[in-house]
This record gives sequence, structure tokens and C-alpha cells, in this order.
Amino acid sequence: MATTWNDDLRANEQAHLDELLTLLRMPSVSTDPAHSQDVRATAEWVADRLRRAGVPDVEIAASAGHPSVIGRWHIADDQPTVLIYGHYDVQPEEPVALWQTPPFEPTIRDGKIYARGSSDMKGNLLTAVQGVEALAKANGGQPPINVSFIFEGEEEIGSPHFRAIVEANKEKLRADAVLSADGGQEGPDTPSLSVGLKGLGGVQINLRTANSDLHSGMFGAGVPNAVQAMVQLAATFHDAEGRVLIEGFYDKVKDLTPEDKAEIASAPFDEAAFKQSLGLDELWGEAGYTTRERIWGRPTADFNGIWGGFQGEGIKTVTPNEAHLKVTCRLVPDQRPEEIVALIRRHVETHCPPGATVEVVPLPGSAYPFVADRANPVYQAAKQVLSDMYGKEPLTVRSGGTVPATGIFKQVLGIDTISYAWSLPGSGAHAPNEWYRIDDFNRGREGYAKLIEHLKR
Amino acid sequence: MATTWNDDLRANEQAHLDELLTLLRMPSVSTDPAHSQDVRATAEWVADRLRRAGVPDVEIAASAGHPSVIGRWHIADDQPTVLIYGHYDVQPEEPVALWQTPPFEPTIRDGKIYARGSSDMKGNLLTAVQGVEALAKANGGQPPINVSFIFEGEEEIGSPHFRAIVEANKEKLRADAVLSADGGQEGPDTPSLSVGLKGLGGVQINLRTANSDLHSGMFGAGVPNAVQAMVQLAATFHDAEGRVLIEGFYDKVKDLTPEDKAEIASAPFDEAAFKQSLGLDELWGEAGYTTRERIWGRPTADFNGIWGGFQGEGIKTVTPNEAHLKVTCRLVPDQRPEEIVALIRRHVETHCPPGATVEVVPLPGSAYPFVADRANPVYQAAKQVLSDMYGKEPLTVRSGGTVPATGIFKQVLGIDTISYAWSLPGSGAHAPNEWYRIDDFNRGREGYAKLIEHLKR
Repeated sequence: MATTWNDDLRANEQAHLDELLTLLRMPSVSTDPAHSQDVRATAEWVADRLRRAGVPDVEIAASAGHPSVIGRWHIADDQPTVLIYGHYDVQPEEPVALWQTPPFEPTIRDGKIYARGSSDMKGNLLTAVQGVEALAKANGGQPPINVSFIFEGEEEIGSPHFRAIVEANKEKLRADAVLSADGGQEGPDTPSLSVGLKGLGGVQINLRTANSDLHSGMFGAGVPNAVQAMVQLAATFHDAEGRVLIEGFYDKVKDLTPEDKAEIASAPFDEAAFKQSLGLDELWGEAGYTTRERIWGRPTADFNGIWGGFQGEGIKTVTPNEAHLKVTCRLVPDQRPEEIVALIRRHVETHCPPGATVEVVPLPGSAYPFVADRANPVYQAAKQVLSDMYGKEPLTVRSGGTVPATGIFKQVLGIDTISYAWSLPGSGAHAPNEWYRIDDFNRGREGYAKLIEHLKR
Repeated sequence: MATTWNDDLRANEQAHLDELLTLLRMPSVSTDPAHSQDVRATAEWVADRLRRAGVPDVEIAASAGHPSVIGRWHIADDQPTVLIYGHYDVQPEEPVALWQTPPFEPTIRDGKIYARGSSDMKGNLLTAVQGVEALAKANGGQPPINVSFIFEGEEEIGSPHFRAIVEANKEKLRADAVLSADGGQEGPDTPSLSVGLKGLGGVQINLRTANSDLHSGMFGAGVPNAVQAMVQLAATFHDAEGRVLIEGFYDKVKDLTPEDKAEIASAPFDEAAFKQSLGLDELWGEAGYTTRERIWGRPTADFNGIWGGFQGEGIKTVTPNEAHLKVTCRLVPDQRPEEIVALIRRHVETHCPPGATVEVVPLPGSAYPFVADRANPVYQAAKQVLSDMYGKEPLTVRSGGTVPATGIFKQVLGIDTISYAWSLPGSGAHAPNEWYRIDDFNRGREGYAKLIEHLKR
């Protein structure tokens, strides 16, 4: 009698965990050129792991940057196809001194695996592969539906070459939906599915007045002051309550529906604790929306930095001739980053104060916003599977953050992404002492096997 | 037969010039603690020079900082008294690499003495002493009117202890007017008298929101952004045309009279050349005033520097929790710096956006504005003397800059200051390759002798 996938996962628990420790020892830091060989070696390890899982068609898809690993397991034309997304690169380990144990020497303490990339997201990546593998073994050597994989190597640096890879492999990546293993649950006993991420588009504004800094007594009253001009210009970006005043900014925004608002309100949010943790007496944002609605569902124009003139100790009576502002917009459907950058450019040119000249330079890292259709059968199936696993219905949540891949999948492949993963809040993604629970490692393996099984027609 | 002062000045031209070179070799850089002994030695040299000129009552008046040299030559109660002001300290010599000859090794080229402090203002200081000395010698050993001197050692660092010195020596410094030897002429053939200087008062505004920088995706839309809050706050300081909107800012301002405007208009000003030299297509400032009126006669609130958040290359999607702004106001009669600082504080507290807290820290270097009464007999006499010397009537000019001493003389002694000196525009005060013309050295010596003689009743 064939073993069940459940028996298989149980029997292989230690072996699977050892594989994760091996993967975590590989310092695949994508931002650091010194680690480019490590990134390449990690891609090869992941490709090899897919082959060992039985995936028949595996390749390393090159790009102008780090490659993606693509695997394709096509079973039958009349079965659905899911594309499992993740990334094998990790954040830098700095500040190293704050790690209790070395970032690339995974250590288990109190049921948690401490290592760089454990939560974000080598744990989730491997559980997806292992879960599908176990299911395939129990199912006669192949999964019951079509499953493809794409694991990129540049997520932590904004996925600059991922669109090109997806475009070049469009036919191979065709699917009914993407399951993103890059994400997590709201809590150990709070199952959740993330269905929305914001897009991103930004610029640096460089403003200039005279040909040098000037003496504020000899010139100040009679010439434009670059800092004052920048303040005037920047003040035209928002009203007093935070609504963006860039002409046309909201034209393509799909406002939150009553259903969206009800869904957002159903996810618990302790506003008092939120304020306290940030040391704030008051929150602040666009009128007419709750804090969660603002963060999850409304677009923003965030000032990330401003500078100009004298920043030293004491006094310098200078009339500055340069000032700079960095603005990034978090976008929602159907805003497009390149259109938003064009609107900012037009706004800046229209509102540039007299006597000043401005230059608008787009910033790297743009991304399309994305919200999945809740009617998507994969979303519905994932909801059912999580309900069974946790004994309660999962929350449907969003994030104000950005994962460029989701927008790329929607744009290039025309498909929705459901985040289906097991990292937890506070697990130190991008920070020292990052961790991933062994319990969640087991839940992840089970969750992927269960969902793929569930999707069989 | 006694020689005339004119003969005496001619006979001593080389000796007087050598004295100037000696004084210029003394690196009396007041801002640099490493030069404090040099500053002291320079004060002693100046005191000694006054004694050698015949001034009977000379002392070095100590302060918590560098001392002032005070000399008093009281002749007769029924003669007028003038107080000659100057400073023996100099700016630092940096950047040294840009000097053609070493800053403290005075070098004569093409009729100019190149050295740090030549134009600002050891040349003018010494010509005043030498001119009065020559006049006294020709007049039987004492000048025909009462002449006092005060030369401070902290002008280049904002005269922080000068008020205390003037207050402590109030009786001794009683005079009908101050002649400030710290200034210049509008051109080699354009005589001028400066009758006004602006005051100064400023603050640094520190604005804070949350207890750390935050991720703009996870938090940005729902929490206050310190840079955005600072922009909102700073935008309340001016209207679009540069008029200051700080409540009460103009309450004590004496507006320019038609006579003031006529006087200002009578000083030639090439606005096209001014714009071209600054690389500006348009000038900018308070509506209803010419450029010269703005710079010479209208108060300002100048943004000297702003900073907050990310200033590096590329993108960082941070919601900053701190922003800073430096504001200094150039003041006109009867504004007072401490009142202006209080008005800024009130304005900032009133306009601080919700969710932000602000701290307003006064900056050092405050000064009172000053405009001399044109009915002052010393002004009238100086005008006559310059007319005789140049064969044309001098311009009456002002400066948008600040010399704290003038406000202190008005406040503590109740007397006006007329700037009567021979430095020229472009002579590199505060810059490398500072110079002073030998022709002006001679004009200065003559000018002081002539004016003091002219003031005899």
C-alpha cells in the first residue's frame, strides 16, 4: 500500500529540516557583488532540489542580473495549473554584531530556526517544494494538477530583471493563479491570506536657484531661496489631512468598496497598541478612511527625505541655491508607476516657484499594485484548506508593502497572486536574529500538499 | 613752522604702510582657540599703537571672550565727541590652497596689499588711528575734538561679548556719534556712506513624529511623516511672494518712507548685471518693493537649511520621524531679535501639524537692526568731507548684512553709527586673496584727519 503524503512528510521531517539548514547556510545576499557566486550556487541548489522532487522540466533562467529558477510539472491539460512563486535571495546580514548566533550558521532554539533568510523566505520556499514532492510521491509520482515554480534571485533588490524573465518565459509560466510563498500568517493561531500589495513609483526632485549659495544679508531678500522654493513646491503635494493633490493622482484609483471595507474591518487591529508601539499620540492620514484602510487600500505620496543648505551646528546665514526631495508613491489598482511619475513631473513643472528650476529624476524600484479577485478558485481553495488546518476561517488581509512580482504576474501573465505562506509577524525579516518556527515549517509542508490536492478537478 | 597733517601723512606714508604690514602678520583669528594668544597679542599691539598716537587713556577691556581695546582722548567739554569703532580680529584663512601668497605674509602686487584682514579691516582700523594721530600732531599734540576708540576682538564671531563690554564702559564711551571704520566705498570713484544695517535673530526647529523611522509601506499612510509635517509647517512662514506670515512679524517695522525710497533709488543698481552674475533669470521677493529696497530695507525670514529622512543615492522607502529647519531673520528698525524669536516660537506652536512635536532652539549671533538719522551732524560732516575728497557727492547706502556693534551702540549708548571706511566691493573679505588698495589706505588716513578737523565747533 502506498504511503499517504502525510506519512511521507512525517517520515522525512528531520531530512527536510536538514535541507533547510543546508539552504540557510548559503549566503545568497543579492545586493552584494561579493556574494554573486553564492547567489549563483543557491540558484543551482534550488534547481537541483526541484529535480530531486521529480519536477521534469527545470532550468536556470538567466537575466542581466541574478537568474530565476523555473520548474514545470505539466500533468494534464484538463487540470488547473498553479505557479508557485518565491525568492532564494536574502537581505544582507548587517548589523552582524546584533546577531546572537551567526546569520549563516542556522541555530535552533526554543522551536525556532535562527538564520538570515529563515523567515524571508527560504523556509517557505522549501516547504512548498517538499509539500508538492510528498503529494506527488503519494500520487504515483506526479502531482494531481499542473504545478510550476519560479524562484527569483533579486526580490530583495526590487526585482529589476524579473519582468524580463517572466516575459521571456511567458508560455512556460501560463497558469490559473500564482501562489506566493513569500508572506506569512497574522499569528500562530490566526490563519490569513494576503490578497493585496501596493505598487511603487517615485522620483527625486532637484531644485536650483542661483549659481552658488549666497550671503543672506547681501542677497537674501532679493533672490529666490532654494529651500524656501522647495518647501513651497512640496507643500502643494498634500492637503492638510494627507490627501494627495498631484493633479490626476486619484483618476485611476479603484476606491474601496463597502465589501472591501468590511473585509478590512474584519481583521482585528488594536489602534491603541499600534500608537503606543510607535510613540505617537495621534495617527494621521487621509480623511474618510480608517488607519487600516489607509495603509492597505489607499495610495500615498511619501516624502522619504529632504535636504538643502546648512545642516551643521549653530548658525550660517546662507541663502541656499539647491534643495532636494525624495518622494515615493505607494500605489493601488489601477494606478501605474510610470503614469504616476509623469503626473509628478507635470505637477512639479506646474508648481515650480518663480526663479527656481527643477529636475525630476525617476527612482529605481517601481512596481505595479495588485489586488487578487476573491472569486478566484485558488483563493477559495486556500481559504478552505486553512479553515480545515486551523479550525477557523482565515482572515483576508493586504499589505501596504510592495512585492514587484505580483504586479508583473498580473500584467504579463494576466493572473492573480494569493500569498500563501507561514512566516510570522516579528520574525525579524530584514533584521538581526531572523527566525522561522519549526511548527510553521511543518504547517507549510502540509499546507502546500493539502492545497494542491484540493485543487484537483 | 608746524607741519600740516597732510605733510605729516605724506612724510610717514612708508612707515604707516609698514605698520599695516606688521599688523597683518598677526593671525588674530577669533574663531579658532589655537589663535587665542595671537588675538591677545594683537589687542596689545593695537593698544600700544593708540598710546604711541598720543591717546592718553588706553586700556584693554576684558570680557568672557576676546577683549576690546578702548582709547579715550578727551579734549574739551564744549567740543563734540566721536567714537571710532572697528575690530582687530579676522576671519580664518581657509581654504589656504586658494591663496596666491600666504594669508599672513602680506604681499603688495599692482598697488594692492594682499593678506587676510587687509580689507576686513586692519587697513581701515589703522588709517583711522594714523589719520587722527597726524591731525593731533599738527594741532599741538591733541585732536581738535574729543575722540574715543573701541576696537573689538569678536566681530567675526558675532560679537557675543561686545554688549557687556560697552555696558561696562558706558560712561567712558559716551559720544555724539560712532564712526565705524568697518565698511567701505561703493567703488574707487564712487564715494559712499552707509547708514543702515540689518539685525539678526534665528532659530533651529526640530520636529519629531514617531519613535523611529518607519517602513513607508507598513506604516506610511497611517502615521505622520516628519518631512511632510515640516514642509507643511515651513510653508506657513511666507506667502507666495515672499512676505513673511509669522503673526506680528511686521508689527514694529518702520516702513520705508518716500524719502528712504528716493535715497535708495539714487544709488545706481544694475539689475540685469546682478541677475547675470548670479545665474538667475528672475529675481524674487516681497511684493511692492524694488530689489534694493528688499535687501536694504525690508525684513526677511530666510531658510538657511532643511534636512530629514534619507539623503543617499537611490531609493529608501522610509517614513522619516525627524526633520529640521534653520531659519534666520534679517531685521529692520524697530524689530528686536528676542521678540522675533518669541514670535517664531508662537507661530511654530500654533501651526505645528497634528501628530508632530516641535522644539524651537534660538541660534547664537543675534543682533539689533540699525539705521542712522540723516540729520546727524557727523553724517552731514562726513558727506561734506567725501564730497570734497572725491569731487562728487557720496551715495548714501545701506547693507542687508549685520554688524552687531551698531545695534549695541544705539541701544546702550543711544547713538547713531555712520560707516566711514575704504574697503572696496570684491576685495575678498572672508575669502582667499583678500586685498586693500594702497590708494585707499592713503584716502583713509586723509579722510579721518579731514573729518575730525571738520567736526571742530
